[in-house]
Amino acid sequence: MNLTKVIIAGPRGRMGKEAVKMVMAAEGFELISVLDHKHEGKLLSEVDENAYANVPIYTNLEECLQKSNADVLIDLTTPEVGYLHTKTALQYGVRPVVGTTGFTGHQLNELKEIAEEKKIGCIIAPNFAIGAVLMMKFSKMAAKYFQDIEIIELHHDQKLDAPSGTAVKTAEMISEARRNKEQGHPNEKETIKGARGANVDGMHIHSVRLPGLIAHQQVLFGADGQTLTIRHDSYNRDSFMSGVSVCVETVMKLDTLVYGLENILD
Amino acid sequence: MNLTKVIIAGPRGRMGKEAVKMVMAAEGFELISVLDHKHEGKLLSEVDENAYANVPIYTNLEECLQKSNADVLIDLTTPEVGYLHTKTALQYGVRPVVGTTGFTGHQLNELKEIAEEKKIGCIIAPNFAIGAVLMMKFSKMAAKYFQDIEIIELHHDQKLDAPSGTAVKTAEMISEARRNKEQGHPNEKETIKGARGANVDGMHIHSVRLPGLIAHQQVLFGADGQTLTIRHDSYNRDSFMSGVSVCVETVMKLDTLVYGLENILD
Amino acid sequence: MNLTKVIIAGPRGRMGKEAVKMVMAAEGFELISVLDHKHEGKLLSEVDENAYANVPIYTNLEECLQKSNADVLIDLTTPEVGYLHTKTALQYGVRPVVGTTGFTGHQLNELKEIAEEKKIGCIIAPNFAIGAVLMMKFSKMAAKYFQDIEIIELHHDQKLDAPSGTAVKTAEMISEARRNKEQGHPNEKETIKGARGANVDGMHIHSVRLPGLIAHQQVLFGADGQTLTIRHDSYNRDSFMSGVSVCVETVMKLDTLVYGLENILD
Amino acid sequence: MNLTKVIIAGPRGRMGKEAVKMVMAAEGFELISVLDHKHEGKLLSEVDENAYANVPIYTNLEECLQKSNADVLIDLTTPEVGYLHTKTALQYGVRPVVGTTGFTGHQLNELKEIAEEKKIGCIIAPNFAIGAVLMMKFSKMAAKYFQDIEIIELHHDQKLDAPSGTAVKTAEMISEARRNKEQGHPNEKETIKGARGANVDGMHIHSVRLPGLIAHQQVLFGADGQTLTIRHDSYNRDSFMSGVSVCVETVMKLDTLVYGLENILD
Repeated sequence: MNLTKVIIAGPRGRMGKEAVKMVMAAEGFELISVLDHKHEGKLLSEVDENAYANVPIYTNLEECLQKSNADVLIDLTTPEVGYLHTKTALQYGVRPVVGTTGFTGHQLNELKEIAEEKKIGCIIAPNFAIGAVLMMKFSKMAAKYFQDIEIIELHHDQKLDAPSGTAVKTAEMISEARRNKEQGHPNEKETIKGARGANVDGMHIHSVRLPGLIAHQQVLFGADGQTLTIRHDSYNRDSFMSGVSVCVETVMKLDTLVYGLENILD
Repeated sequence: MNLTKVIIAGPRGRMGKEAVKMVMAAEGFELISVLDHKHEGKLLSEVDENAYANVPIYTNLEECLQKSNADVLIDLTTPEVGYLHTKTALQYGVRPVVGTTGFTGHQLNELKEIAEEKKIGCIIAPNFAIGAVLMMKFSKMAAKYFQDIEIIELHHDQKLDAPSGTAVKTAEMISEARRNKEQGHPNEKETIKGARGANVDGMHIHSVRLPGLIAHQQVLFGADGQTLTIRHDSYNRDSFMSGVSVCVETVMKLDTLVYGLENILD
Repeated sequence: MNLTKVIIAGPRGRMGKEAVKMVMAAEGFELISVLDHKHEGKLLSEVDENAYANVPIYTNLEECLQKSNADVLIDLTTPEVGYLHTKTALQYGVRPVVGTTGFTGHQLNELKEIAEEKKIGCIIAPNFAIGAVLMMKFSKMAAKYFQDIEIIELHHDQKLDAPSGTAVKTAEMISEARRNKEQGHPNEKETIKGARGANVDGMHIHSVRLPGLIAHQQVLFGADGQTLTIRHDSYNRDSFMSGVSVCVETVMKLDTLVYGLENILD
Repeated sequence: MNLTKVIIAGPRGRMGKEAVKMVMAAEGFELISVLDHKHEGKLLSEVDENAYANVPIYTNLEECLQKSNADVLIDLTTPEVGYLHTKTALQYGVRPVVGTTGFTGHQLNELKEIAEEKKIGCIIAPNFAIGAVLMMKFSKMAAKYFQDIEIIELHHDQKLDAPSGTAVKTAEMISEARRNKEQGHPNEKETIKGARGANVDGMHIHSVRLPGLIAHQQVLFGADGQTLTIRHDSYNRDSFMSGVSVCVETVMKLDTLVYGLENILD
């Protein structure tokens, strides 16, 4: 088997550490170097005692790319730095997988052009949790057949905003496929205000907040005599790594830039 | 085994038919006669082809009580008639189990006095669904230890009112046991109105309405690192009969009137 | 709008009655006649008091097709009769939607050839419950990304076989997409036999049987830090009708025979 | 308000650290000293940088008790040491709350005698997760009315044994209240071995194992037309601290030894 050779930018951040572990453990991947803002010339294992990775640290991406013969750059830094990294990697023919979310439309267009010119893949993903992305994708598919839909999202009680961003994003994706409908009985009334939740295009979203909870969402579809429920439970940050892994595999087969995990899962 | 001898008033109504079936099928019970507003002198099996009960129909309760030597009267008629039935049965020393809900406080007091004077049991129950009553009872118990509670009730989309009566009753029972608390983050805000549901004493109730659903409720309790969930699903009217059966068994051991199934379940 | 003109075969059976109601109520459909094994020349409303359909009853399909100018035949009879109905309808250029399941491979091939020759659609569906079919379809899709899968199916306690046919079918569909894996810890052991359920290709199926339950199934997918759950609840026979409705709409756009609802839902 | 003065034994262990945080944060409690096996004479804040507790460390319990004027000793050490701590505390009139599980019946009897002689409370708890204990307690109560019960326990796939200890304990507690019954259809048969789970007194237990899951259990009760479900989700170790807190409050009101949280929750 040909191993996919990987560089990780941001290897000591919260996501970066998980990514180092994931790439080291994955059968088809090989970590060949990392990009950091300091520790040039050391080994990663020397500066992070929990990382058993004897790979060199670079502080300059171009030098790293020239010396590393990499296939993929996983970038888990900031939007500003990430943008430059992505552009440089593409110019060197190395395929970027980027988890930062703050790119502008202009930047995305520019990167897309370079990817197409170079005929190589590039994936930019705001959300690496495969389960959450599948929940949204399936919900949109089911909405073609079920117009009656309610979303319940459940989070810990330290969360400030209700509904959650994921719930709103889910409702928006559903709206693209669902025949328009104001749900519930036409004469239904709330004897206590708020009981029927937030109304988005006639669908209803309910936000539950309790200590103990982490991040959960279920989408309920109803029709005569039956209901369909799609639920995602996120327990911790590990959940992102299987998404990163799928992206590394997929980016090798692409010849353009793809935005959003939902567009590579089939 | 001594069989408990039972009269059913209202044997051809929706609940009455189920009660006839239940009493016929139960090992410890014996159906000895029924009380109806017509068909005096016929057998129940003659006027209701689905009731395989060869028991006589009476239209006058006193005559029925005099001739039947019954232990228990199950009354599934209307509040007006039911009140008279209950009073008469008590006076004859026959223990009533009554499923009608419209008795006044004055009527209840009067019936209670007769029961205590006669030293016999009498049960008046607004809700015979044991599962729903246990859900409420357990919720009240759990609220002593979990102050953070959210209720989600789910019904078919033909229901007019939100929240459901059971959800409000549950919240009220919980409030008797729960230390007062305004839940959620103090600075939490709804970016879409209604997302956080109906606020009852700082708890939140969410009403889901979808075609296909029947009658469901779950009560969620949260604390650091854990959640507890109590859920009741009601699929059809059969669910009342196990409650009636428990009442018939229990009323034989009581020497006073008890209002509400939650006060006989232990 | 051009109404789709529909014939129903078997209009007085359990499914047939529901289908009559559905077609009468649907905006885009028109019921023009029914096929029965008796009552030739009467109106359906004359022989079934609950069917407000003043449409003629035929007992001979060819005559019915010649006189009716129909677009679609919904066949809800038996496999033997249904096969002949399907073949005849195709030959007359009328598109069949068939809910009987007992066709042989040979029969299916023959019908497929006629449909292709006539260039018209034909749908044969063993299961019309859209929610169940979507659950299976989504499960197969998710299995590409989650190899760890457990199925819990829950039915009333009068069901004889465990696991259910739907659970086994779901596991088979998943196996087509899932990388092979023996799940659980390699050294896991059952201290009480059967705890880990039925093993199908390394996945586990658990069969719950309780009075009160109807027909429910959930498929659980696990990965680091997250789970995804897809659940279908079937409460009654009404749940089939939205599937029949989708089939009638879809068969008008097809020019070949399709077997299985999962192959027309996208 | 009179603060309850608390000593914690084992303040630097995994549970002990959480307990220090909990006692420091609780309004009604005051941490006055800790018992450790080293660091005599230092402050806890000096040896554990995350513990902002300026309380003295003792290595000798008797000296600690003599100087501290405590109300309660929370012991989170080992069974051997914990037994001696409990005995000593009782003799000094200080009420023990002990989370270790390995005491013998003989030791428990001895401790119970001392507690009764001194007329003070003492709580020994194998499980401090209030939610789990309530789930078991409610299940036992519900089993009086529902004989048909299935348990589904769900854990991460690194767990070796199936079913879980909590599931077996739950079944045993249920058996004390449930009328004996072999569940399911008398002629039910497994077409794939294990589908119906582990049989305990006619009830069935199903063990789900998936990566991502933590520790979850649901108990399902079925009867005609309804189901009742009680579910506990444990997400992390924090879940024990509310149990410890309830024990500290309760032990002040007791005048005997109580074993098991289920016997103090009402």
